[in-house]
Amino acid sequence: MMKLTILGTSSAYPTLDRFTASQVLQINGKSFLIDCGEGIQTQLRKNKIKFNSIEDVLISHLHGDHFFGLPGLILTFNLLGRQKPLNIYGPKGIKNIIISLLKIGNTWTNYKLNFIELENSSSDIIYEKNNISITTIPLYHGIYTNGFLFRKKIFTHKLLIEKALSFGIDKTQFSGIKSGKDGLKSDGSVIKNIELVEPLPLDLTFAYCSDTLFNEKTIHQIQACDLLYHESTFLKKHENFAKKTFHSTAEQAALIAKKSNVKKLLLGHFSARYKDLNLFLKESKVIFQNVDLALENKIFVI
Amino acid sequence: MMKLTILGTSSAYPTLDRFTASQVLQINGKSFLIDCGEGIQTQLRKNKIKFNSIEDVLISHLHGDHFFGLPGLILTFNLLGRQKPLNIYGPKGIKNIIISLLKIGNTWTNYKLNFIELENSSSDIIYEKNNISITTIPLYHGIYTNGFLFRKKIFTHKLLIEKALSFGIDKTQFSGIKSGKDGLKSDGSVIKNIELVEPLPLDLTFAYCSDTLFNEKTIHQIQACDLLYHESTFLKKHENFAKKTFHSTAEQAALIAKKSNVKKLLLGHFSARYKDLNLFLKESKVIFQNVDLALENKIFVI
Repeated sequence: MMKLTILGTSSAYPTLDRFTASQVLQINGKSFLIDCGEGIQTQLRKNKIKFNSIEDVLISHLHGDHFFGLPGLILTFNLLGRQKPLNIYGPKGIKNIIISLLKIGNTWTNYKLNFIELENSSSDIIYEKNNISITTIPLYHGIYTNGFLFRKKIFTHKLLIEKALSFGIDKTQFSGIKSGKDGLKSDGSVIKNIELVEPLPLDLTFAYCSDTLFNEKTIHQIQACDLLYHESTFLKKHENFAKKTFHSTAEQAALIAKKSNVKKLLLGHFSARYKDLNLFLKESKVIFQNVDLALENKIFVI
Repeated sequence: MMKLTILGTSSAYPTLDRFTASQVLQINGKSFLIDCGEGIQTQLRKNKIKFNSIEDVLISHLHGDHFFGLPGLILTFNLLGRQKPLNIYGPKGIKNIIISLLKIGNTWTNYKLNFIELENSSSDIIYEKNNISITTIPLYHGIYTNGFLFRKKIFTHKLLIEKALSFGIDKTQFSGIKSGKDGLKSDGSVIKNIELVEPLPLDLTFAYCSDTLFNEKTIHQIQACDLLYHESTFLKKHENFAKKTFHSTAEQAALIAKKSNVKKLLLGHFSARYKDLNLFLKESKVIFQNVDLALENKIFVI
């Protein structure tokens, strides 16, 4: 299972009830913080996400609405006595600016900050641990930007039917063997479970694509993923403006979802100019049906 | 009149319902933003303070909880089409770090940013316009820190009684003359108001002292001011910790208020460890009676 909590999806600046870009993806008790807009500390508290469960922060790009909450979060972690290291993945330059912000206040952390600076313009595997991997998705935003593809491998067991039958194992045992039991031959002798099954990887995938111009090059990487968050800063009537500012419309996000055959699409990063966000759903659904709005404090389970 | 709106007074980091340091002092339709912690954009909106009424931002020191909201605010002003310049007063180094934060995002402002960098360890008049002045108050926080004394001169008119009598003007005209009317001699001739009065300055004063160790050197500067905001991060039981971290207790803030004979004291910058903030009032009132808590969204009129 993966659990995605939306902390903020306002584009560019916060409003009275919306925060700038930030989400948390929880897998196996670990929380991956994806982007870190201003005010995200409060949102983490509101959503009861334990600060100490965050070991990895991924910053898509260095526009303020995607990382101005990070320096404060780093200092808060320190004040609350954090011991374990924090890994920060982000565009080259992130280390220098964060360190400068701490230094200017004569402040430092008692825990280790590991910066993993990204500068590759093609896709890279940047995390691989405990059957979880994170791969960058190059995006097109006029400034160096990465999306992130999260993959969790789950191993199920495929029963080797012919082999089982050759041992003379009765079909009534098959469901038990699939769930890990040994096989029993008609003469009473035991065939170890491992002889009768083959591990079968089943991937859960979440793709985060923000911010980006509509670009079909993304499609091959997010093909058939379970959940796609794709920015949709604008509605169709502002398509020209989307192009000019390297953003997407709801319709364009839906087109990416359709062409990559994802299971579900989440729209977010809405411009503050729109009051009725349901228009985003409406424009998207013409092209792709299984779509939802990524609103503050909503949870999506994969 | 001066109107002070409290935007945030949590010490070090925000909590679920409190923001880090920021206040707005409004004088003659102008808003002076004093410190700018994270999330202050939202607080400005909530308190209906027009972004365009802010021409001057004063940063006391470069700890994150006092200025991490400024870069985002600068960018939001730009996105909303601001034209008029923004004056930013703060410790030397503030210009470089703010410019670096904008540059790293390939962002810039279409309006002018005027940085007034402070480095004098003694008091300076840093603003003087339209009968409003701002003077720095050197504070003691282990890092270069200034408080700010705001002074608004109001000119009333003192009647020159002997001169009026020498013209043979009757006492019944005195209150009219004080409010701007000309004088009338018994022979019907007119004596211009300007001949009969003398402008008399009446100052309204607000002193902002945060963050600081208890230090009596501050007293001479804030003598008899109308309203003093003084940090009180800790209660008496943590006095040693206050000293170690260059902060004050509620009792120490009260002592400064008493010794400087101010009219009213506001306590703020409370550590997040305390749930019952009334204890700050209680400890302060033993020494100084006219005291209030500077809580989020409260307004104080001078």
